[in-house]
Formats: sequence, structure tokens, C-alpha cells
Amino acid sequence: MFITLEGPEGSGKTSQIPALADYLRGEGFDVVVTREPGGTPVGDQIRDVLMNLKNVSIVPRTEILLFLAARAQHVDKLIKPALEAGKIVLCDRFGDSTMAYQGYGHHVDLETLRSLLDFSTDGLKPDLTLLLDIPIEAGMARKHENGVEWNRLDAYAEAFHQRVRQGYRELVKAEPERWVVIDAAQSKEDVQQAMRQAIIERLRREEDWHPGE
Amino acid sequence: MFITLEGPEGSGKTSQIPALADYLRGEGFDVVVTREPGGTPVGDQIRDVLMNLKNVSIVPRTEILLFLAARAQHVDKLIKPALEAGKIVLCDRFGDSTMAYQGYGHHVDLETLRSLLDFSTDGLKPDLTLLLDIPIEAGMARKHENGVEWNRLDAYAEAFHQRVRQGYRELVKAEPERWVVIDAAQSKEDVQQAMRQAIIERLRREEDWHPGE
Repeated sequence: MFITLEGPEGSGKTSQIPALADYLRGEGFDVVVTREPGGTPVGDQIRDVLMNLKNVSIVPRTEILLFLAARAQHVDKLIKPALEAGKIVLCDRFGDSTMAYQGYGHHVDLETLRSLLDFSTDGLKPDLTLLLDIPIEAGMARKHENGVEWNRLDAYAEAFHQRVRQGYRELVKAEPERWVVIDAAQSKEDVQQAMRQAIIERLRREEDWHPGE
Repeated sequence: MFITLEGPEGSGKTSQIPALADYLRGEGFDVVVTREPGGTPVGDQIRDVLMNLKNVSIVPRTEILLFLAARAQHVDKLIKPALEAGKIVLCDRFGDSTMAYQGYGHHVDLETLRSLLDFSTDGLKPDLTLLLDIPIEAGMARKHENGVEWNRLDAYAEAFHQRVRQGYRELVKAEPERWVVIDAAQSKEDVQQAMRQAIIERLRREEDWHPGE
């Protein structure tokens, strides 16, 4: 089962993953935790190009294509082999991030982006995607609680993050059966509980639907 | 004017470029010579990932997306600014190589590849493309004249290169007005002469058609 975690920055998504993986391992599942971009040696080299501060001149189309290049490698060399070995793959961000951030956030044509995305994933889709949804103001407030100072960029970025959040909602609307939306404004413990419950329910349903698989 | 040079390996394409650029400069044109992948600092870093022998695990989709990422950067940061400054850009390989090698050679779906390509180039097309065409056997024989030994890979690769050559011909057929096909089995001097003539004719025609530009 391929599970992806999505959500805006400040949703606490990444910090929930270790406890979630431990829980699933405790339930007897073989779990692989991974993230984008990266997850493979080639992906890490691509990540270095993307993150290198000297590369300020990188243009948006190059950035998108580099993310997609890392993803193609990630899918073929890590995600698909793990799924074929019967493991649960927990992936921090996947294709929906591209749609939400580049498409809805940065106004890249959605249809073009979708076809690029399908090429990079070779058509692989998550079985379940958890969206940790939080109002933009609350996500930003949480960043500042953690000692991160509010700055001009945050204000500028607010409109962008509103579009990203709206984008995620559109994606949920288009494929409601794949998504579970979790209120990330709850306490960390409640968010963790909701994530576990969503995954266990999906695992049970898969078993009922495909006995023996 | 944006001029690209295409052709199979062994067509002598790359070795013709310096004399061609010198000739055009002698005629008073401002000429930029460039090649793919590369041409920009970010492109060179991507080239390093592509050429790194340790990256034997790189999958075909990743390879294509990396080539396209380098191209997007190349178009925005080097080719378009040079064209806007009124220069002639001579580029050793461009989008047609992707179609010929990945599409026709490696059987990647042509329609998908075309839409990826259009994204990476932002729709930029060459004004003129010179195809240095040579029968596969002659191109291989030329490689061996130059002291390169015939090996098992060459034999294996022959069918691939036949598909690439056929691919170039299909591309010419689809857009005959953009291409000039040059017989690369001629002497180097005759090939150089034919390339110069093709460019000069196109420059004259552009002047007639768009006076004042």
C-alpha cells in the first residue's frame, strides 16, 4: 500500500511520520519511509542541484523538471520495488504537491502539469493520501511559536499559500475516494490518532475487497 | 536566428561548428555557439549528474527529464536572451535529438515526448535545422577510420541508430520548411560549404520576407 502525506508548511506533517511508522511496524507491517525530492542516490544529487543556494538563477520550468526527474527515479528504484515486496510505503509529499504548489500556487497550466506528472510517475498513484489541512494563519502562527520570526516574505507568501490550500481542496474534490482530510489544527496527539485510524480503515477495506492479497 | 545542428554520431556535425561560426562572424554576424545538455551553470551541474559513471542506475524517464530540465534553463538563460539581442545562435543538438533518440530510438511515446519537449522549450523552435545525414554504416566506418575500434556495442547499436536516422527523416517530412538535409558522406569541405550555403540562403529569405527586421 502506497500512502502519501500532503499539506501546507506548518501542518506538522513531517514530524508525525516517525510515530506513524513505528505504530504500523508495531502492528506487524513492513514500512518504508521516504520523502521527495530524494530517496535515491541520483535523487539526492538532483536535490543538491535544487537546493544549492548558488543556483538562484534556476527557472521555474527547470525546477519542475528536476523535481519530476527525481520522482521518476524514486518511483522506479524505491517505491515500486518496495510495493512489489508487499511493504507499506509512507512518502512525505508526492505528485499532489506538484499540482498544488506549481499548478495552483504558481499558475503552471494544470493539464500540462498533469501530463508531465503522469510521465514521471509512470502512472503510479497513491492508494491513500492524507491531507493535513490547516488554515494558513494557524500554520504560520505555529511556525512563529517554534521561534521562527514573521517576516515580509511570509506576508507576500500568504496569498500563494492560500492558493496551494485551495488547490489541495480541488484535488480532494476530484478524487474523494483516495483522500482523507485531517484537521491539523488539533493537538499533535489527535492528529496522530486520526492518521492511524485513516490508514487502518483503508487497510481493512483493502483486505475485504481483495481477500488473499 | 536560431540554428540547430542535428545528425547521428559520426556525421561530423560537431567538428564543423567552429569553421561555420568563424565564417558567419566574418560575414558580420554576432554568433553564439552552444550545445546540449549544458550551456549554463545549472545545465552543467545537470550534465554532471547525467554523465557521472556512478549513476548507472539512472532510469530512462529520469534521463529524459534531466535533459529537458537542462534545456529549459538553456532556453531561458542563454538562447532566448541571445536571440533577443539579435545574435545568431548555433546549437549542437536541440529538441529534435530528444524526438529522434528517445522517441524513435528508444520507443518513448512520441506524443508524450512532444508535450514534454514543448514545456521544456517554452514553445521555442529553431528557425533552421541542418541535418547531417549519413548512412549508419558510413558513420560507423568513419568512427573506425579515426582509430575508434569496432566493438560488440556498435553491432548492437546499429538497429538503434537505424531507427534514429529514420526518426530524423520523419521529422523532416513533418516540417520540411524548417530543415535542410546535408549529405554528410561528402568531403568535410563540401559539407562545410553546404552548411554555409543553407544558412546564407535562409538569412537572405528572412530579409526578403521581413524587411527591416
